[in-house]
This record gives sequence, structure tokens and C-alpha cells, in this order.
Amino acid sequence: MTTRPRVLPGLTAVAALQQLRTASPLVHCITNDVVQSFTANVLLALGASPAMVIDPREAAEFAAIASALLINVGTLTEPQSVAILAAIHAANGAQKPWVLDPVAVGALGWRSAFCRDLLQLRPAAIRGNASEIMALSGLAAAGRGVDSADTSLAALPAAQQLARQTGAVVAVTGEIDYISDGEQQWAVPGGDRLMTRVVGTGCALSAVVAAFVSLPGDRLANVAAACRVMSCAGEQASRQANGPGSFTPAFLDGLYHLDQSQLCAEGQP
Amino acid sequence: MTTRPRVLPGLTAVAALQQLRTASPLVHCITNDVVQSFTANVLLALGASPAMVIDPREAAEFAAIASALLINVGTLTEPQSVAILAAIHAANGAQKPWVLDPVAVGALGWRSAFCRDLLQLRPAAIRGNASEIMALSGLAAAGRGVDSADTSLAALPAAQQLARQTGAVVAVTGEIDYISDGEQQWAVPGGDRLMTRVVGTGCALSAVVAAFVSLPGDRLANVAAACRVMSCAGEQASRQANGPGSFTPAFLDGLYHLDQSQLCAEGQP
Amino acid sequence: MTTRPRVLPGLTAVAALQQLRTASPLVHCITNDVVQSFTANVLLALGASPAMVIDPREAAEFAAIASALLINVGTLTEPQSVAILAAIHAANGAQKPWVLDPVAVGALGWRSAFCRDLLQLRPAAIRGNASEIMALSGLAAAGRGVDSADTSLAALPAAQQLARQTGAVVAVTGEIDYISDGEQQWAVPGGDRLMTRVVGTGCALSAVVAAFVSLPGDRLANVAAACRVMSCAGEQASRQANGPGSFTPAFLDGLYHLDQSQLCAEGQP
Repeated sequence: MTTRPRVLPGLTAVAALQQLRTASPLVHCITNDVVQSFTANVLLALGASPAMVIDPREAAEFAAIASALLINVGTLTEPQSVAILAAIHAANGAQKPWVLDPVAVGALGWRSAFCRDLLQLRPAAIRGNASEIMALSGLAAAGRGVDSADTSLAALPAAQQLARQTGAVVAVTGEIDYISDGEQQWAVPGGDRLMTRVVGTGCALSAVVAAFVSLPGDRLANVAAACRVMSCAGEQASRQANGPGSFTPAFLDGLYHLDQSQLCAEGQP
Repeated sequence: MTTRPRVLPGLTAVAALQQLRTASPLVHCITNDVVQSFTANVLLALGASPAMVIDPREAAEFAAIASALLINVGTLTEPQSVAILAAIHAANGAQKPWVLDPVAVGALGWRSAFCRDLLQLRPAAIRGNASEIMALSGLAAAGRGVDSADTSLAALPAAQQLARQTGAVVAVTGEIDYISDGEQQWAVPGGDRLMTRVVGTGCALSAVVAAFVSLPGDRLANVAAACRVMSCAGEQASRQANGPGSFTPAFLDGLYHLDQSQLCAEGQP
Repeated sequence: MTTRPRVLPGLTAVAALQQLRTASPLVHCITNDVVQSFTANVLLALGASPAMVIDPREAAEFAAIASALLINVGTLTEPQSVAILAAIHAANGAQKPWVLDPVAVGALGWRSAFCRDLLQLRPAAIRGNASEIMALSGLAAAGRGVDSADTSLAALPAAQQLARQTGAVVAVTGEIDYISDGEQQWAVPGGDRLMTRVVGTGCALSAVVAAFVSLPGDRLANVAAACRVMSCAGEQASRQANGPGSFTPAFLDGLYHLDQSQLCAEGQP
């Protein structure tokens, strides 16, 4: 039995962002080749510290030092899969949370099997689009890679099921983001279609989720706060931008300056 | 016997761009480490969908799903060469077109041999600068890597020969771009020197060529349309920009908004 | 016995930058995955030519052609370590200078040992933050990756010692940069805290150092000029920018237009 999703209060996001800026968590990112720079810049703009360490030995060493670990399988390779497993085991051993971004799971065979295996390793959170979350949960989906053919609301049951199966907080993102721990749900409206014309906005959100799950307090609310921070900055940047090129500088500037008045405005209770 | 190159009519580029935005082709990019993000953002700004899938098994699986495949050897490695071959064979098997960007061929031994082998695998198009096209055709050239010491017009005979040898449409780009199928030629003026101070404009053009060769209709005209779209947006962005830093946002915004009035203006018949 | 650091005269930086733009050195970069594009764009904006060649055979071939070689271990892997050694040996054989950026040395075991081994291979220059330079010199430091917990002035003795041990010019960068050959020192003020919220400003500086060490003349002054060029452009871009997002375009535009009036202004003797 699950509750209906309610919209995350803006003040919850404000409080979590405040904590993030104070803690400045060190986020170990093992992510895809395409979004490395954007991911690092998003974390830096928010006040967190990114580090991409990818050799298996060093990844294990670093995962125990870092505040949280992000695993994104967008450009998975055999050597990277070794580093990912080493890093996850080290993070678990050091009781550091790790987050899974199952890019294009459901569309490609090897990574689908790999990600399903990773689910046994107790991710703190999973962030994907509707197709990915449905595929990962075992409910059928037809993706064609990074696009999401399904809406996030249609994938909410899959997110809930996946959360109950794994113990992770699951965020299924789209026009509205839904964040579930299998029992409680938050909805996060906002964002803008322009964000789908900029590579890495979803991948960077997963890194931000990793930063937020390293914070103390309610994990479900922290993951939802990560979604709200990104959708709020995205909404504003889209309003200022003249297209996907000017979106990126405006978005990073917006994350850097994001404050209570913005997080509590429009669409917020 | 070949005809003299004529300037591509703006309306041809307009029609092809219209088709591209409607079809939103999925472009599988196996490209160099430096330009991944810019390449993806260029495709997204134009309305295509990029995906970088690089594990050999997954690359083969994905090449058969995607609309077209881009091969760029800028940061070629042994494992990448395996993935490239797997992807090309899968694309050919599924009758999907693939495009070669022979970065720095002629300047470096291994990639030169590798790219010459790839010519046997029926690329739909080849896009390079003058040095690269001359080296690939077997006509002598002296490159020092990514720069082009030769002008595109001087390389037009090499482009024609390469097109006849391989069956590919060959685009040799520079101040003026020449596009040849070995018999017919198009010339595409435009662009701006500022584009040579921004990494990846040539590499991204090759990805755009891949998007356009997936469209129905005349392949020679489609490749030339890809060149015109990029040079037109580059010309405009250069006029607005204050340097190579502000060029990039302006260029992506320009690709996003590009329309008939722009494609049919200045320098067009 | 060492002299006190004096502030680098602006005219020294002006003269070196002039030389750089005339020579347009070809900089072979073996650098980390996160900063490839930004590094290339910084070199291009300044008038140098970047090339990232990473296969061991090609890296050796190319290091002998290029004007200088940059080694940055930020995302070191086993295959990359092979390419690095091949490239350094080829550069040394061809009497081309190479520069080391020891990212996160001291924080991670394998790269620390690897970089210490590299010190035997006669780097022309080493550029790092205080933690990295202290760790590399053997003086104790406690880094947590890419951040620098120590100030650059506190690391000046370590820089001097490292310079004397290796024969390299050592730049330890921070709020003020110090550049030492073990006897003489230059200080370079400038820059802005905003630069720490943009990924790759330090890594790109190391690439610029590689470009400048390829120039004739006094190597110590050339490395200091590289630092001054970047801190001057960073200072100006920070003044214009509205945050870390708009910093990047402004910074690249600034490098492209940088002139004597700027390099000789504020904080310069």
C-alpha cells in the first residue's frame, strides 16, 4: 500500500541545500565519457566537490574516502565494470552510500544484466527515466537508449516496486519527477523541455542525488530535494536562455546562486 | 570526368533540415574523448538524438538499432578499434549508413593503416580536412595532426578519387567545403575562422553528416546540407560572439533556431 | 639558499605570450577524461594547437612531432600509464619538453608511486596545488583529492626542494602562484575564487605551462608567464561573470583577446 505522491515543500529543498553547501561532500563519480565535465561543473556550482577516479585499485581506495559514490553506466566497458564493482564494495565496506544511474538499461543487453546484478549491492538511490526504471524493475518497457518513451507517472509503480526490492530510494524523472522509497512518495514538478536538448542534465542530476544522499536526515526527502534543486535551476535557466547553448552557463550560474525565494516559488506548496 | 562544383542551393539545406527535425535520427557516435559532449550537444540542438555506446558487444547491438553510425578516430585505442569494427559490421548488416572522420590520418601510422582498412567496409560518407582526405586517398600530404596545411580546393581531386574508390560521399572541409560523390560536386561557403579556435567543430560536423545520411533522398545533397547547416550557424555565431568562448553557446542556440531565412541568405544562390 | 619570490613583471608575460602566438606550439596532451575539451579550448583560445593522442604506439610517435607534452594523471589507468611512459621516452629522445600535473598525488597510492617514478624522467616543469607539490616532494601533506588543504606559500619550500631534486621548474598554484627552479622564484598574484568552482582551470594551466616551456628563452620566466596569463584572464572573467557558468565563455574570450594593457595592470610592478 502506498500513499499518493505529494509535492515536495520548497523549504525541505532549502534546508537540504543549506546542509549540502556546509558539508561540501566529496562525490566520487564513475560516470560516462560524455558528461564528465558537465557533471563536475554542476557539483562544483552547487558547492560539492567532484572527483573522477577510475582505476580499479584507486577507485576502491577513493570510494572509502569520498562522501558518496555515483555509478553511471552510460559508456560502460569491461574495465570500467571492474572498477565499478571494486568501488561499490569499498563504499559499502566504509558505509558510504552509492547511487545508480542505469543509462539505457532495457535497450542494451550487457548493461541490463550488469545493472540487475548491481541491485544486489544495496544502492542508496537509483535515478533514471521512465524506460530505465521500468526495465530495471522487470516491468516491460521499450526504450531506444537515452530517450524515455514512457512518462514518469506511468513508471511510478515500477519505481515503488524497485524501491521495495532493493531498499533504495528510487527517482523516476521526467516532466514531473517522482521519488519513492516504496511507501512514501514525493512529486517534484518543474524543469523545462529545453533540458532534454542539453546532454547530461539527467546524468548530472544523478551525481547531485549522490551528493544529497551523503547528508544526514531523511533520505527520501534528500533525494527529492536534489531533484527540486535541479528542476528549479533548470526552469529559471530555460526562461533566461535563448536556446540549449546559452542554457548551460545560465544553469550553472543559477545553481551557484540558488536560494530560498527561488526554491519556494512557483508550483510549490 | 567531373563537373565543376556549384554552390548548394539554400532551399536544399532547408528541406533536409526539415526532414532531420521530423525524423530525429538516433546517431550512434564512437568518437574521440575530447569532443563527446560538444558532439552530443550539437546533435541535440539540431533535433537529432546522440548515443555513445562503446563496449564491443553493445556497440554491435546498438549500431543495428541506431539510424546511423559515426566513426571518429581522434583518440583511437586498441579496444576502441575492436568496438569500431564490431559496430561497422553490425551497421552494414542492418543496412544502416556509417560515416568516417579520419582525424589526423596521414600524420600517424597506426590510424592511417586502420582507416585505410575501414575504406573496404563501405562508408556512406567520409568527412575530413584537406590533409586527411589527401592522405586517405593516397595522394601525398603533410599534416601535423588536426590542423590542415592544405586548402580544401587543392584536395578536391583527392576527394573525388576517394569517392570513386569507396562509393562514399566525400566532404573535404575548410574555408569552403567541397562535397563529392566522384562525379557531382557541391561547394558550401560560409563558416568563420573563429571556428578553428573551438575544439570539435569539425568532429561535430561529421556527426551531423551521419545524422543527414540517415535521411531518405539524394545522399550527396544531404551531406552538403549538413555542411551548410553547420557553416551557416557558425557564420552567425561568429558574428554574435566576442571570442571562442561565447561562440559555443551562440552556435548551439543558432543550430536550435536555424531557419529558411538564414539558410537561404548570404552567399547562397 | 634561495631568493625571496618577486612578482613577475607584466612585460615578461606579454613577451612570452607574443612568442606563443607566433610559434603556435603543438601541445600533445595525455590528460584526464574530465578536462579534455576545456584544455583543448584553452590552448586554442591562446593560439596554441592541442592534440590528444593516447594509444601507446601513436603517443610515442606523436610526442616526437609535438612541441611539448603534457602528462596529467587525474584519471590514470593501467593502459594510460603505458602510453604515458611511451610518450615521455619519445619526447625525451626527441628533446621535447614534458610537463607533469600530479593530480591528487598524496591522496591515492598507485598514482603517487607512479608520479614519483616519473620524476626520474626529467620533466621540464611540474604544476600542482600545495598538497600535491608537498606530497610529491616527500614533505608530508594531507590532501583529499583535487582540493588543496594547504596554501601555496606553505608549499614553497617543497616546490624549491622538488625543483632541485628533479631539475624541473615547479609551479605551486593557489591564491598566489609560486614558480621556482630551486634558486630563483617568481610570485604570480591574481585569479579569483570563482575559478575553484569551474572544473579544469588548474589542469588547463598545466597544458598552458607545456605550451610555454616549448618556447625559447628563460624557462622559469616562461612558466611564470603561463601562470600570469591564466590568472589575469581568470581575474577579468570573474569580474564579468555572473557565476561559474558564465565564467567559462568569458575566460576563453579573455584568453583570445589578452593584451599588454591587461597583463601589465593591477598587482603588477
